[in-house]
Amino acid sequence: MMPGRGENRRPKRHERQAHDMSTLSLSLEEIHSLALDTMLANGCDDANASALADIVTRAERDGSHSHGLFRVPGYVKALRSGKVNGKAKPKVSKKAGAVVHVDGGGCFAPLAQAVGLPVLAETAAETGVAALSLTNIHHFAALWPETEFLADRGLVGIACTAYMPMVAPAGSKEKLFGTNPISFAWPRPGKPPVCYDMATAAMAMGDVQIAARDGKSVPLGTGLDAEGNETTDPAAIAEGVLLPFGGYKGSAIALMVELLAAGLTGESFSYEAAESDNHDGGPPRGGEMVIALSPALIAGDGWEAHVEGFMDRLTGLDGVRVPGARRHVNRLDTGPRSINAELVETIRGLV
Amino acid sequence: MMPGRGENRRPKRHERQAHDMSTLSLSLEEIHSLALDTMLANGCDDANASALADIVTRAERDGSHSHGLFRVPGYVKALRSGKVNGKAKPKVSKKAGAVVHVDGGGCFAPLAQAVGLPVLAETAAETGVAALSLTNIHHFAALWPETEFLADRGLVGIACTAYMPMVAPAGSKEKLFGTNPISFAWPRPGKPPVCYDMATAAMAMGDVQIAARDGKSVPLGTGLDAEGNETTDPAAIAEGVLLPFGGYKGSAIALMVELLAAGLTGESFSYEAAESDNHDGGPPRGGEMVIALSPALIAGDGWEAHVEGFMDRLTGLDGVRVPGARRHVNRLDTGPRSINAELVETIRGLV
Repeated sequence: MMPGRGENRRPKRHERQAHDMSTLSLSLEEIHSLALDTMLANGCDDANASALADIVTRAERDGSHSHGLFRVPGYVKALRSGKVNGKAKPKVSKKAGAVVHVDGGGCFAPLAQAVGLPVLAETAAETGVAALSLTNIHHFAALWPETEFLADRGLVGIACTAYMPMVAPAGSKEKLFGTNPISFAWPRPGKPPVCYDMATAAMAMGDVQIAARDGKSVPLGTGLDAEGNETTDPAAIAEGVLLPFGGYKGSAIALMVELLAAGLTGESFSYEAAESDNHDGGPPRGGEMVIALSPALIAGDGWEAHVEGFMDRLTGLDGVRVPGARRHVNRLDTGPRSINAELVETIRGLV
Repeated sequence: MMPGRGENRRPKRHERQAHDMSTLSLSLEEIHSLALDTMLANGCDDANASALADIVTRAERDGSHSHGLFRVPGYVKALRSGKVNGKAKPKVSKKAGAVVHVDGGGCFAPLAQAVGLPVLAETAAETGVAALSLTNIHHFAALWPETEFLADRGLVGIACTAYMPMVAPAGSKEKLFGTNPISFAWPRPGKPPVCYDMATAAMAMGDVQIAARDGKSVPLGTGLDAEGNETTDPAAIAEGVLLPFGGYKGSAIALMVELLAAGLTGESFSYEAAESDNHDGGPPRGGEMVIALSPALIAGDGWEAHVEGFMDRLTGLDGVRVPGARRHVNRLDTGPRSINAELVETIRGLV
């Protein structure tokens, strides 16, 4: 139905390099070790390093290279600049009967999630719906690991986060929203969940930059030039602003994400993140909101068969794929992955 | 930022008639009485009739004519056909600590909401987040009254419902999704909330039909003709299918709405609603999901000022309006409304 980040879209630069250029074959264990050792060598304690190595390995396993080893140099930069605390001990608490809060203490998001998600799942399985607010974290990863974690436990998951301002609200010419991704997962017992994870920007800025490098044009509606004019020239958009996907309606979704990820967590809005950032290239401090809902408690007995009836209709349509399917197929391959040799070299130089 | 249904868009046919053709001036009280008397004369008891008259009057008050008296003939049709039970007594129960359920007993949605929303708000104010599932209802109204109800009580509201299949999932040529509206409201103490209510279809089928009548074209991406080809001809789309707004990403939002409104409530998916409908022109049986979240409990003290800082940035941008603002301005006018005389005549003929 729709491509998640890292699947079924034009390969990103580093992915094409992995095919066009020299690559190394690394087992999933080797990928994990490389990430783990790099984090440990750059100020992470075991818990922080493991959480990052896990998320990087899962991304490479699923073919989502843009959230895999490709991110490690950025993680290291943020650790070395002191922006992120690699020894942070996230604290989990209940703010209300159905509200879990994790103060990350300045860690990267994956450790805060590892601490908070099990409590969220446990709470939602009891109350039927629950929310997890993550604050004082640095989000640099995909969102589907959170929502898939919930779906694997029979829960519906919704997650969103805000980031640096890059997107102009529809009607405006000035950036205010982040690329503001939202992820949604629906549990399918015995099958991989329906799961997507998408930016509410029309296109990722990285893809705009690649199009500019390659001399290609982008669709109208992708962004505006520095003067606020519509353009298909990606180089002009790189100097200007992105637009939300889908015009006014996509902009409304981006606004919801901004309000849930920042307003509802109490953490930085995109514009605040930018103002407080040290510009080391790593992710600024931000928040994340995750909502879990229990179909077993809300819809009750028989919910699985009812939804599978709908899924049969959906998957029976020509041209439609279940969101997340590509990632789940990749996952079945436990063999080695081809990784850009230059990237591996760079990471090894960071230890 | 974006127009809700019934504001800041090309006036629908009946609205243009209200200006172009003969109109009657009715006070809000007269509008309420007209709706109430019509419902009472067509098999509604006091509670059902009042809930409908209230929702119709609020729509007219806010300038959302397409959800006002315009709907009354459809309400009557559905009552007369026996599809909808005008004497239903919705039953509210708790399915879990944070889950409220209303079995509408076959009523129109507004009465089920009137019964369930206060319990939802009360629950969310205690647990921090809560869900309301509405089943066995007939949804024919806007969604913003639900989310605004919550925002007026300091809660974030998210509501969605599915309907008849009219929209082809992105990549497909066959209709499966309803127009699947989603509404979101953010509370602003002392100010009208941020509130939108939008179909996840690129355009409402009614607007497509009006464009066809007027010999106008619609943007590519609005829908497909009966053979599944892209077209700008609204008459061809009226014979074919609508598309989701915003391509694959909008389709993913439409899928989420379908799963939340039907899968999570246990009520009919759009395709099931169509299969069980009696085609009297009234709305088929369906479900609705409403989620309420408490910023006071989740974000904690100071949430209002934090979000108002963001809202100042948003409203400071040229070209940006706060969703719902038009409706809230209309609301301040307590004077009479101009109503299409022919419509009033039709409704009076239904008593």
